[in-house]
Amino acid sequence: MDALLLVAHGSRKPGSNDEIRALAERLAQTPGHRFDWVDCAFLEITEPSISEGVLGCVRKGAKHITVLPYFLAAGRHVVEDIPAELEKARRDHPQVRITSTPYLGAAREIPGLLARLSQETG
Amino acid sequence: MDALLLVAHGSRKPGSNDEIRALAERLAQTPGHRFDWVDCAFLEITEPSISEGVLGCVRKGAKHITVLPYFLAAGRHVVEDIPAELEKARRDHPQVRITSTPYLGAAREIPGLLARLSQETG
Repeated sequence: MDALLLVAHGSRKPGSNDEIRALAERLAQTPGHRFDWVDCAFLEITEPSISEGVLGCVRKGAKHITVLPYFLAAGRHVVEDIPAELEKARRDHPQVRITSTPYLGAAREIPGLLARLSQETG
Repeated sequence: MDALLLVAHGSRKPGSNDEIRALAERLAQTPGHRFDWVDCAFLEITEPSISEGVLGCVRKGAKHITVLPYFLAAGRHVVEDIPAELEKARRDHPQVRITSTPYLGAAREIPGLLARLSQETG
């Protein structure tokens, strides 16, 4: 069983965290991925934490968990904090394969998306 | 003259800020937008600030500045801080039209982009 865990920073504003939860639900229903289960977790401030999110996937029967860092820049969180959490998760669940995708900001679609978004009024 | 100002949070890690500057340069060269000038500015921590970024666009001859908030969630920065900075910029430059696009996280392409990115190894 293949699980995808969308990992966001976590906000003090509940609405921002709910936005991530809604995005994970929308993503689950979006064509083009191969995952049986999609969930989200937060690096800081709110729950589920990354280790709780991983545990949730394991309890669902995941043999491979793919973590997608929902971050815009290769700052400390992407370069150090999330990899450290994943190292810990691998030690806690040695039977589960835990890998990561590039962070959102590294996606090749971003400049084209911004060019399109720049035509919209907010 | 039409200018686009990509507004990011700003990071204590210089590489993350350079990533935004490089993105603004890539965006300038991306087909699909109508802007004569593309630059970036930062809400906090580093420079140029939003007011400095707006001033730079005005000095380039901008009559309309479109601000694109490079943020993922509708948190305080998107809902309060950036609009307050733009209100101030409008008072400072009453001859210039200053508008905003939706923030990046609100773009309709995000779920599809994540579905595609989830297939990549980071």
